[in-house]
Amino acid sequence: MALAAAVYPGTFDPLTNGHLDIIRRGAKLFDRLTVAVAVNLEKTPLFTKDERLEMLKAEVEPLANVAVEAFDGLIVEFAQKQGARVILRGIRTFSDFEYEFGMALTNRKLADDVETVFIMPSVEWSYTSSRLVKEAASMGADVSHFIPPRVLTRLTERIPRRQSFPTS
Amino acid sequence: MALAAAVYPGTFDPLTNGHLDIIRRGAKLFDRLTVAVAVNLEKTPLFTKDERLEMLKAEVEPLANVAVEAFDGLIVEFAQKQGARVILRGIRTFSDFEYEFGMALTNRKLADDVETVFIMPSVEWSYTSSRLVKEAASMGADVSHFIPPRVLTRLTERIPRRQSFPTS
Amino acid sequence: MALAAAVYPGTFDPLTNGHLDIIRRGAKLFDRLTVAVAVNLEKTPLFTKDERLEMLKAEVEPLANVAVEAFDGLIVEFAQKQGARVILRGIRTFSDFEYEFGMALTNRKLADDVETVFIMPSVEWSYTSSRLVKEAASMGADVSHFIPPRVLTRLTERIPRRQSFPTS
Amino acid sequence: MALAAAVYPGTFDPLTNGHLDIIRRGAKLFDRLTVAVAVNLEKTPLFTKDERLEMLKAEVEPLANVAVEAFDGLIVEFAQKQGARVILRGIRTFSDFEYEFGMALTNRKLADDVETVFIMPSVEWSYTSSRLVKEAASMGADVSHFIPPRVLTRLTERIPRRQSFPTS
Amino acid sequence: MALAAAVYPGTFDPLTNGHLDIIRRGAKLFDRLTVAVAVNLEKTPLFTKDERLEMLKAEVEPLANVAVEAFDGLIVEFAQKQGARVILRGIRTFSDFEYEFGMALTNRKLADDVETVFIMPSVEWSYTSSRLVKEAASMGADVSHFIPPRVLTRLTERIPRRQSFPTS
Amino acid sequence: MALAAAVYPGTFDPLTNGHLDIIRRGAKLFDRLTVAVAVNLEKTPLFTKDERLEMLKAEVEPLANVAVEAFDGLIVEFAQKQGARVILRGIRTFSDFEYEFGMALTNRKLADDVETVFIMPSVEWSYTSSRLVKEAASMGADVSHFIPPRVLTRLTERIPRRQSFPTS
Repeated sequence: MALAAAVYPGTFDPLTNGHLDIIRRGAKLFDRLTVAVAVNLEKTPLFTKDERLEMLKAEVEPLANVAVEAFDGLIVEFAQKQGARVILRGIRTFSDFEYEFGMALTNRKLADDVETVFIMPSVEWSYTSSRLVKEAASMGADVSHFIPPRVLTRLTERIPRRQSFPTS
Repeated sequence: MALAAAVYPGTFDPLTNGHLDIIRRGAKLFDRLTVAVAVNLEKTPLFTKDERLEMLKAEVEPLANVAVEAFDGLIVEFAQKQGARVILRGIRTFSDFEYEFGMALTNRKLADDVETVFIMPSVEWSYTSSRLVKEAASMGADVSHFIPPRVLTRLTERIPRRQSFPTS
Repeated sequence: MALAAAVYPGTFDPLTNGHLDIIRRGAKLFDRLTVAVAVNLEKTPLFTKDERLEMLKAEVEPLANVAVEAFDGLIVEFAQKQGARVILRGIRTFSDFEYEFGMALTNRKLADDVETVFIMPSVEWSYTSSRLVKEAASMGADVSHFIPPRVLTRLTERIPRRQSFPTS
Repeated sequence: MALAAAVYPGTFDPLTNGHLDIIRRGAKLFDRLTVAVAVNLEKTPLFTKDERLEMLKAEVEPLANVAVEAFDGLIVEFAQKQGARVILRGIRTFSDFEYEFGMALTNRKLADDVETVFIMPSVEWSYTSSRLVKEAASMGADVSHFIPPRVLTRLTERIPRRQSFPTS
Repeated sequence: MALAAAVYPGTFDPLTNGHLDIIRRGAKLFDRLTVAVAVNLEKTPLFTKDERLEMLKAEVEPLANVAVEAFDGLIVEFAQKQGARVILRGIRTFSDFEYEFGMALTNRKLADDVETVFIMPSVEWSYTSSRLVKEAASMGADVSHFIPPRVLTRLTERIPRRQSFPTS
Repeated sequence: MALAAAVYPGTFDPLTNGHLDIIRRGAKLFDRLTVAVAVNLEKTPLFTKDERLEMLKAEVEPLANVAVEAFDGLIVEFAQKQGARVILRGIRTFSDFEYEFGMALTNRKLADDVETVFIMPSVEWSYTSSRLVKEAASMGADVSHFIPPRVLTRLTERIPRRQSFPTS
């Protein structure tokens, strides 16, 4: 029975509809999917680890074979501990492509029994990212199209001061 | 039991070590993998459908859960007939990326219960393609690094006249 | 009164919903938009020049400021004859990007009073192209999502024999 | 009368000849063009908002239909307040392409009556950016080719300490 | 004394100012540079091998250390016969990049003592190619900016019938 | 005697096997190659200038025609002081490509007698970078594949606290 378990790592700061689309597709592909929330000590996320876990758990609740866990350290080691031989990644754009490939090849060197598998989100979410959502929301934009309602509620409370957009 | 069956479509004219690398990785990921040889009536391949099937069958023989079949028509329909919900594709370079994404999104529109899943070959095969192998061999280059020995034997017999390389 | 007139060149073999999306956006941006159907003597299109003109005219009929014309020769000269200072192009993917830029820079050299202006179609049509539509239809795929109903009718009549898809 | 008004947003820290090239092209395309200087509270620009406004106003002074204004918040809202239905953006390289497309699609979701329109600067400025100019100038390089003389004067006064270049 | 000799392969059908720019830069970098004209039996070039050699010889005549020769077969073998350890290639755009890298890596496998070295033409020629020049000229466009005067004379005589441009 | 001397600039924080591969190839191409260690006052490297110089010197010791020096300021000025007319750069991925081209074109404007020359590392190092190595090592990953043993020893001593990987 192949591909029984997979992990889907990310920061999810916050969860977007693009992430959710990948999770739903992954839940159909695998017997068991663990959403792995990166606890990155060097970045300062907008939402704490616990908030990100809560938001994810609320959204994946209807998906019986999806779990949510925090992880710290190497994703390949986390996958191995979970008995997962697959790292699932969504890939949307060329920037993703190159970054993800470097990551996948590095992880292959670190643990060659773990394969990184890429799927595409719906085109609807081709350009959606947590960063863009936060930037737009910080200026009072209506970002309800891009994130689940419960995430929107939290984001609206947490929102920092206004800035201009775009800011290239 | 998820991802039990997958199809891996291509022209395989001829099979390269890059294709074989993807097949071996796929054989570990899925319970059953069908290598699907496209019978494209409009292109004139160097090797006939039967030759391509034979070459593939010889190489995948050690892989118990891998079958080889020809297909004609839509790959998503072929997948569905096989009871496969996954189309497996190798992705190496950016050109692949864009072409493959168009294909995957088109296939998703045609059959949204079939998911295209991408994996990477070893970097060793990042730039290997059937076309490059044929071009180089046609000038008498030693292409034994890029293709299995049995394929090399056939290619050497079949080789067209010499031309210059590269030919940009 | 700036940007009064623009031309939107293409082969339209056949018109897709992606083309139509660009035409509708262009019709809002410009006082007058001429869809310019390329009469390319070296390629053999699936539909004749007259068929392509008819299909386009039928679809743009509701758009009062849009005309459809065939052109032969340099698009910059065609634009100048139309009194248009803008060439409108849709841009979807990176492949488009590079090809279109080469074209735009060449056209700028040929006529520096004509500016090429790019807009994006809806993401829905990011990967839709006439070629993909023809390939998929040639295998009996349902391509009704990608083209207008009247184009679908003609395409179904014109369809060539089945082949496999994809055919990489 | 279409495309009467457009906004051209940016940080302009500082204005380069590439920006000026886009502004001049835009001034020919539109009845009225507003250069919109982003007031980004989170980044620390080299030049203050007022300095950037002054530099731009000095350079666009000969262009009768070009105005310069600061904006804070969503560019689509700024455009709407200006009665502009077009956001003008210069696009030079592939990195631009992907970033700009994400931005344009996000802005389309926020306000679908505002269209983002892309034009290309002269190839002369394909790789010119404010960042590269600042980095090179900080090491005492002669950057007079890339920026207007008045900007050069200010940049020379403002220059930080020397560092190495390139610094990858 | 390193890098004494290099070969610069291409089809040169016809020579453009972009090619000439690379040749001039190469002539400064290497003691001896051989422009290697590919005799590709499968493509039908617009100009014969002899015409292409003549055009090149006329233009490189002022460059004392540049020779022009035809080659048939593997460029690495041609380089080795010339005593050259370097294949020089111009690289302009991303499409070049990926194609050239595949070629360079293939050539490295065939002969690892020959290194492919890339330089950039002037941005002026970023998007100039023999194909674009021929397409534009075939419609009577003035392409004198892109090719040397002597090449223009020949191209004008050889020109095929008119077609539309662009022809996407 | 062309291309006698070249400089190969970088931060080398730390040196990877990919850098070393470029240095070895460069040592065959040029009479004299100077590895130029950028002293960037604004970034805080993991290793001091002296440590980076030491690590490089230890590795290039067997290469008789390779020197290692620190530089501060413009690389083109450093090259000129060294009597070098070539800046050597490794190019691996598309991201490199675009960044490197901007840099090379800027340097060409600053000193048009200095040419930037690109070569490719072995595909083995296509996705290796100092940044990825540091990130992976910081989580206790075994990065011995990517860096020389002596660099590994120093990196292991210097390693910061654990974080998760990847952290997108």
